[in-house]
This record gives sequence, structure tokens and C-alpha cells, in this order.
Amino acid sequence: MSKRALSVTREQDFPEWYQVAVRDGDMAETSPVRGCMVIKPWGWGVWERIQAELDARIKDTGHENCYFPLFIPMSFLAKEAEHVEGFAKEMAVVTHHRLKNEGGKLVVDPAAKLEEPLIVRPTSETIIGDAFQRWIKSYRDLPLLINQWANVVRWEMRTRLFLRTTEFLWQEGHTAHADRDDAMAETRKMLEVYREFAENVLAMPVIAGEKPANERFPGADNTYSIEAMMQDGKALQAGTSHYLGTHFAEAQNIQFQNREGQLEYCHTTSWGVSTRLIGGVIMTHGDDDGLRMPPKIAPRQIVIVPMLRDKPEDKDLLDYCASLEKELKAKGIRVLVDAKPVKSAEKRWNWVRRGAPVIVEIGGRDAAGGNVTFMRRDVLRDGDKIVSHTKPVAEFVAGAPALLDDIQAKLFAEAKARLDGNIVTGIKTFDELAEYFGAADAEDEGGAFKGWAYVAWAKPEGAKLEAIAERLKALKLTIRNAPLDQKPVEGMCLFTGDAAREYVLIGRAY
Amino acid sequence: MSKRALSVTREQDFPEWYQVAVRDGDMAETSPVRGCMVIKPWGWGVWERIQAELDARIKDTGHENCYFPLFIPMSFLAKEAEHVEGFAKEMAVVTHHRLKNEGGKLVVDPAAKLEEPLIVRPTSETIIGDAFQRWIKSYRDLPLLINQWANVVRWEMRTRLFLRTTEFLWQEGHTAHADRDDAMAETRKMLEVYREFAENVLAMPVIAGEKPANERFPGADNTYSIEAMMQDGKALQAGTSHYLGTHFAEAQNIQFQNREGQLEYCHTTSWGVSTRLIGGVIMTHGDDDGLRMPPKIAPRQIVIVPMLRDKPEDKDLLDYCASLEKELKAKGIRVLVDAKPVKSAEKRWNWVRRGAPVIVEIGGRDAAGGNVTFMRRDVLRDGDKIVSHTKPVAEFVAGAPALLDDIQAKLFAEAKARLDGNIVTGIKTFDELAEYFGAADAEDEGGAFKGWAYVAWAKPEGAKLEAIAERLKALKLTIRNAPLDQKPVEGMCLFTGDAAREYVLIGRAY
Repeated sequence: MSKRALSVTREQDFPEWYQVAVRDGDMAETSPVRGCMVIKPWGWGVWERIQAELDARIKDTGHENCYFPLFIPMSFLAKEAEHVEGFAKEMAVVTHHRLKNEGGKLVVDPAAKLEEPLIVRPTSETIIGDAFQRWIKSYRDLPLLINQWANVVRWEMRTRLFLRTTEFLWQEGHTAHADRDDAMAETRKMLEVYREFAENVLAMPVIAGEKPANERFPGADNTYSIEAMMQDGKALQAGTSHYLGTHFAEAQNIQFQNREGQLEYCHTTSWGVSTRLIGGVIMTHGDDDGLRMPPKIAPRQIVIVPMLRDKPEDKDLLDYCASLEKELKAKGIRVLVDAKPVKSAEKRWNWVRRGAPVIVEIGGRDAAGGNVTFMRRDVLRDGDKIVSHTKPVAEFVAGAPALLDDIQAKLFAEAKARLDGNIVTGIKTFDELAEYFGAADAEDEGGAFKGWAYVAWAKPEGAKLEAIAERLKALKLTIRNAPLDQKPVEGMCLFTGDAAREYVLIGRAY
Repeated sequence: MSKRALSVTREQDFPEWYQVAVRDGDMAETSPVRGCMVIKPWGWGVWERIQAELDARIKDTGHENCYFPLFIPMSFLAKEAEHVEGFAKEMAVVTHHRLKNEGGKLVVDPAAKLEEPLIVRPTSETIIGDAFQRWIKSYRDLPLLINQWANVVRWEMRTRLFLRTTEFLWQEGHTAHADRDDAMAETRKMLEVYREFAENVLAMPVIAGEKPANERFPGADNTYSIEAMMQDGKALQAGTSHYLGTHFAEAQNIQFQNREGQLEYCHTTSWGVSTRLIGGVIMTHGDDDGLRMPPKIAPRQIVIVPMLRDKPEDKDLLDYCASLEKELKAKGIRVLVDAKPVKSAEKRWNWVRRGAPVIVEIGGRDAAGGNVTFMRRDVLRDGDKIVSHTKPVAEFVAGAPALLDDIQAKLFAEAKARLDGNIVTGIKTFDELAEYFGAADAEDEGGAFKGWAYVAWAKPEGAKLEAIAERLKALKLTIRNAPLDQKPVEGMCLFTGDAAREYVLIGRAY
């Protein structure tokens, strides 16, 4: 049994811990619709913060938001399928547009069959490309920099809340450029936006790099990712940015007249992050007492719990809390007084499990003495003991913004130390790699904490790469990416024995 | 031919004017997907402002945002259909979850047929009710106040951008309460939120009132609406708020234990507004030069067009504009310098058609003299002549917030005068009503501008009401609502000759 607020610890069973942390943290729940989730207010509040912070960055880099249709005609995908190998086909297909009552039973009306099936968008390259083809006429229209926030659907067989769901929410950027250089600069710029956002807002350290050819988005010339290390050592691909060359432009006839009056195909990019980020935040920062939300995305940064006793004095206590709330709000802090008719201890633990960065408990003695008693969620305990602090109210209020900054910084530093400390660099051969990672537990695909390996390779493509991927797959490993920021490569390729061309990260992944 | 910036005037052909205004205003366009629209950056910017302003109000009234699945199992709707007459059946039905390649052709994979068809949500009462049924146990859990921002799909046969599209975006509030009084108070509170929002943010005057029984949301005990008068005199239902009684709670078993320990059904409400509001804004404020955006929802409130001449002096001009931009931004104004490589005159007219509230044109003389030359979009012309104003830059900047407030107020006042001036009150008999409205043009369902009639009626239900609705329908008329704010009723029912119980508004509608 756990001596902590959750019924299972990370060490006992990390996948189970994740489920419990999501549930007890009031983030989301499974729905009666296969693979789709209900995002609850606390979880949605996190997504709203993510949207606000990232949207500002997307706009600051010159992009405009649009909205494109949920449905894509099947013929659009056929066009793409011709051009793109590895085209995923698991998607929701709309075939009819009416129900009817048949003998008191609701059935699909066979008379209302669509001439052409519609696909619920799994991603929007094709439908947005169709608009680009109409909107772009001349080099003056370039670059065209568009983003949309939308729901998408991919028919997943095995789903996990936030990490992999049939319906998920994301932003997808789509841009068109006059040449490769400009498109590639865009691809890299947005990767850097994601890195900066993940680290500074989510407090989630990541490694930005290029995916090997076999892990590219279908149709991409280059795919880049940010990879985060979860507390079980596994990698979470937290965002991707693709340089699509002229593949989509050719498939969809996205052309422009250049300065010389000649028609050329555009070079396009796409890039996205999704509600999956929330799963990453949970597995980066959560502990055995539940979630720990970085202050920048916590829907409420400070929660005030009045220790109500169902007595007349409660009124004074609530007034004291309201005054504190007002002062904190004036400092731009997202604050809540939780005055619900629930026992104070229960409320405390609810907020611990949800990961409110600072939990203030105000009892009669605090109010009388003009004090504030609070817990920091990032360092909730000393051993088993809960650590609480008491300060005069003015001092607490004055220091609150710095306190939140400190929590944000500490969460990042803790995760950064884990990432930096768990990338092994000495592995030179495939046997050493196999020995290091050992056999993965077939059940949870996890096994003991292992972190990642940083190995030199020759960057092969084609059949050679496929053979490598197969050998790694047998160990449940994948090449995560080739970090952009890497040391000069030395020695031989771990897989082929050829001269190494770069370092890549290898690990197990979500 | 129009002497204005659009190719057609409102008077010549209002429906056609609307299409042109939407297109030339860069708001949205039809997509290759039947009935679905592409919302372009300027249009999406308006929706973002609407969302931000309304969301703040929804939160201030104690609601929390969530997110529920896009898909609804068909059996959920069957449950509702049993309880609800008039259940709409035109909706997108997902029947398969995979495509496959068959001889080089992409087809729906018959092996991937869903056991139970999924419906793309037309509204979310059933899927949210399912969660409510799980979340609500005791009176302590009530009221439960939830909202979601989402896309919904209703298979419309005849669509018009923003006004009626197969996919549209909206917010839908869903709440559960312990008793009728509390639920009814919520229903009315949110109607008032909509009224205040429409008038103060959209500058769109509305009349809040109760719908007659035949116009209720299926399953509602009471439906309230806000109705706006468009420039062709027709009514636009701009928002609705429903008291659902215990109908949905009974169908979905949403029960709570009351203070005495007994189980009771919850009383629920729902309320929503959609991207249709944008159509309302366009038809309320647009003129023959295009859109006129109320400053509170204009994505850019002031647009600065430098009169570039492709000469070295352009640099100084751009610096001057950048400095002006910075000063206006510091005042919290959404401002843009349009330095695109397009002729100044073309840019001017683009911004006129988009309805930017203030358009600043900076030429060499302005920059040299430290002046700003600008146009107010609300009063663009005096007769045919464009009116521009010149002010010293400091004076312009200092007065900019007040200028935007004035434009907002003037747009509202103009629309309010039209609404107030076009409700006729003297009609006592059905013949007078028929004579007043005359025959509607079968083609556009419009006819000449007529406004609304404010008539006394006996508020019948059932067969009597249906007969009235039929008679009105022959004239293409409907009862819009019974205004909440109305004078004491006198005289007899226009339809039945019984003693009148209240006044209702009658008009043609979108």
C-alpha cells in the first residue's frame, strides 16, 4: 500500500500510476465513446493555458489562425495516397447523413447514403492544401503562414488518456514558401518555438532533433521532433515539425508565379502539438501524491482552503480569505477560494492530487494573527511529513509571484537533471545496447527505468535503415531523433560499422 | 452598377450583397465539402474576439469549461428520441473506421464496419448528460455548471456562410440543478448574458423573450431567445437558452440525493450561441462599401497603411508608422501596419471592405508634418465623398481609445434606431398583418423591408397554436418571441379573438 495520496506509486506500476494520477487529479476520464475522452474542468483549464501561451508564440512568429472543415472528401486522400507511402488508413468514415425511425427503432437511413464518403480529418494537409491552391497566385502571396486549433480523429486500437486517443485536440500549422531555404527555416523556427514553449511554459525539458528517415511523417522530406523523458525513462514525442518539400504542392497543384513570371511549386511545411502534451506534463512532474502543475499552466496557481467549522466564525474566515484572494488577484495570480461544503482535509488532498502549485489553508488562528499557512506542491513533504510554512499575509502576498517562479524553476530543474543524468554515452555496439536496455516486459512495454542511449551512427536510409529499425523493434526500441545540438561525431556506426555521421538518441517510447 | 466598394448594394439584392460582403471582406468562403466553410484569418479573428469576450462572461457567472467527445453512439440518441418529439435526424453518421486500397483505388473497407454507428454531435445534451449522471450524486454536487466550445454538425440542405452551415462552431452550456427555480434562474441569467454581450460587444441590439411553444427546442419546457433585426428587416435568432425541466434527466437517469436522503431528478438547462453571430454582425453593420466591424470584435482596430512609393524615403515612412504602431499598442489597441507589396489604394479598399474601424494612411507629408490622416469606417463618406481627418500624432494617439469607443457606440445607436423604428404596434387583425407584410418573394423569402409586428395574442398551445403557425407560414412569417420587457397587455388575441395574454413579435426570419 502507498503511504501517499494515490493508491499506487510510480515505482510499483508506472502505467497504473498514470491512470490513477489522471483520474484522481480530475483531469479527464474515458467516455462511453470508444477511445474518446472527456476532458474535465481542471484538465481543460490546463489546455486553455497551453493554447493561450502557444497561440501567442504562433502569432508572434507571423502566423494567422483560420478554420477548415472537419470533413475531408475521400477523393482528397486518394490524391495524397498516390503520392505518399505509408499513408495511414485508420480513420472515421462518414457514409450517411440521416437517421430514421423504423418501427420505433432508430436506424441509419439507407436512402441517405453520401455519394462520396467523408473522412473526419486525421490531419488537414489535403483540405488546407486545397485552399492554398486557390489562395496562392504569385510570389507576393508567399510565405503563407496559417495555423488552426482543431479536433482530429485517428482510429487508434489501444488508447490512453491524453497520450493516445481516437479524438484529440491540437494545433496544426501549415505554411507555403517560395523555396526550400525559406520552408526549411520555417520548419526549424517552429521546432524552436516548441522547444522554448515546452521548457519555459511546461517546465518539460526536451531534446530537439531530426527524426530518422523511417520515422518521418508520410510525405515529408525532413521531420523534426522534440522528445521529452518521462519518469519511467521512456521518450514522449511531444511535437513535430515537417519540411514537406514539394510533395503536397505537386499532389494538389499549389503553384505560384515567380518574379520571372514562371510557375513553380510551393515548398510546404506542417507542424503540430496536441493534448498529448498534457500527458507529458503529468509524467514529467507527477509524484506519488498526484499531479504537480507548473504554475504557468496551472488553471489556479494558488488555492485557498478556509478551514470552515460550520460555526458563526466561518464568516470572518471567509472574509479573510476573500481579502487575500483579492490581493493575489491584483498581482495577476490565478487564485481560487475553495469554499465548497466539503471537509477541509478532503479539499486539501483534492488540491494536492490536482497539483495546485500552492495550497493555502486558513484557520481561525491564521486569521486572528494575520498569517497565511501554505504548502508548496513541488516540495510537499520532508520524508513522509507534510511541510507547511507560515508567513504574515503582507509578506506572503508580496512574495507570491516569486514563489510561483521558484516552483516553476524547481520543477524544470528537477526534470532537467533527470534528463541530463539518464542519457548514456558509452555504448559502442548493438550487443552493448541490447544488454543495457534488456528485455522489455511484453505486457507494459516498459521494464525498469533505463533512460536513453546516445550513440553514433552512419545515418543510413532505405533497406539498411529498415533492417536497423527491425533489430531495434525486437528490443522495443526506436531511434528518437538526432539532436540538433550535438558534439562532433567520432568513431563508427553502432549498427553498420561504417564511419559515423552523427549521434542519435535511442530509447523506448510512448 | 454600384458606386460603392462592393459590386452590389444592399438595396439591389440583399442576399447577394451578403455573399459579396463576406467574400470581399475576407471573412470566409465555401469549401469543397458540402455545406462546410473555411473561416479565413479576418473572420477567425472576429470569432476569437467573440470567444474571449463571451468566455469571460461565462466564467464570471460560475461556469467551468470542459470538452466532450465529438461522437455520440446512436443508442444515446435513440434514448433521447423516445423522450423527445421533433427529434432532428439529419446528421453525419460514421459507419466505418478504415479505408483500404483496392486495385490502386481507395475505398471504404467493408471489414471495418462499426458495431454501432457513431453520430457526429449535432448538440451534446446526451453525451454530457451521460457524464452528469456519473458526476452527480448529492445535492452538494449541484448546481453543476458546464460549458464547452466545440464544432457541431447538422446536415443542412440549404446553407449560407455563417448563417447556416453543416459544420459550425459554438459554445454550449449545460447545467444541472436541484429544482425548477434554480434551473429557471440559470436559463434567464444566461439569456441576459447573451443580451448584454450582443449589445455591448457586437453592438447588435436584440430583443430577449420567450419562444412560443411550437418553436421550443425539442424536449424543452421553455425556450428563450435573443432576436436581432437585420438590415432587410428579417429576424436573426442570435442565441437561445432552454429550461429542459426533468426530461433529459429522466431519459438519462440524472439523479441526486436531496438533503432528506431521497433521490430526485435534476432540472437541466442548455444554452448556446454560434458562428451564426458573425453573420448577424455583418447584416447588422455592413454597408455598401463592405463590412463595418465593431471595435470590440475587430481583429485589428486600427490599420496603418504607409503610402509606399518604392523609393528610399519609404524607410522613413515605415519608421514613422512603426513608431505610431508602438504608441497605439501601448494603449492596448490592436493595431497593424500593412506594409505588404500591394498598391496603397488597393490596401485602403481591402481594409474598407473588411471593416477595420479606423484606417490610417500615412504619406510623406503626414510624416514630415507629424500628422496622422485617417478614416472612420462607421462614417466613411459624406454623400459619395470619402471623409478623412488629419490630426497631430500625439492628439490622435491620445484620442484613439475614445475614438474606438465612439465608433462602437455609433454603430450600436444606428442599429438600435433601426430596430426601435421598425416594430409596428397598431396591427389588430390577421388581415392587417397579412396586408402589412404582403406576399414574400418566393425566390429569396425576403420581399421589401418590413421590420416586425408587435401584436397581442392569447398564448395558445397545441392544435390552436399549430393552426396559427400554419397561417403565418403561408405568409413566410413566424412568431419570434414574447419580449420579456413588454407593456401591460390589452385587447384581444390577433389570431383567436380571445383575451390577449401577452405581446409577441412577428416577422420574417433567417
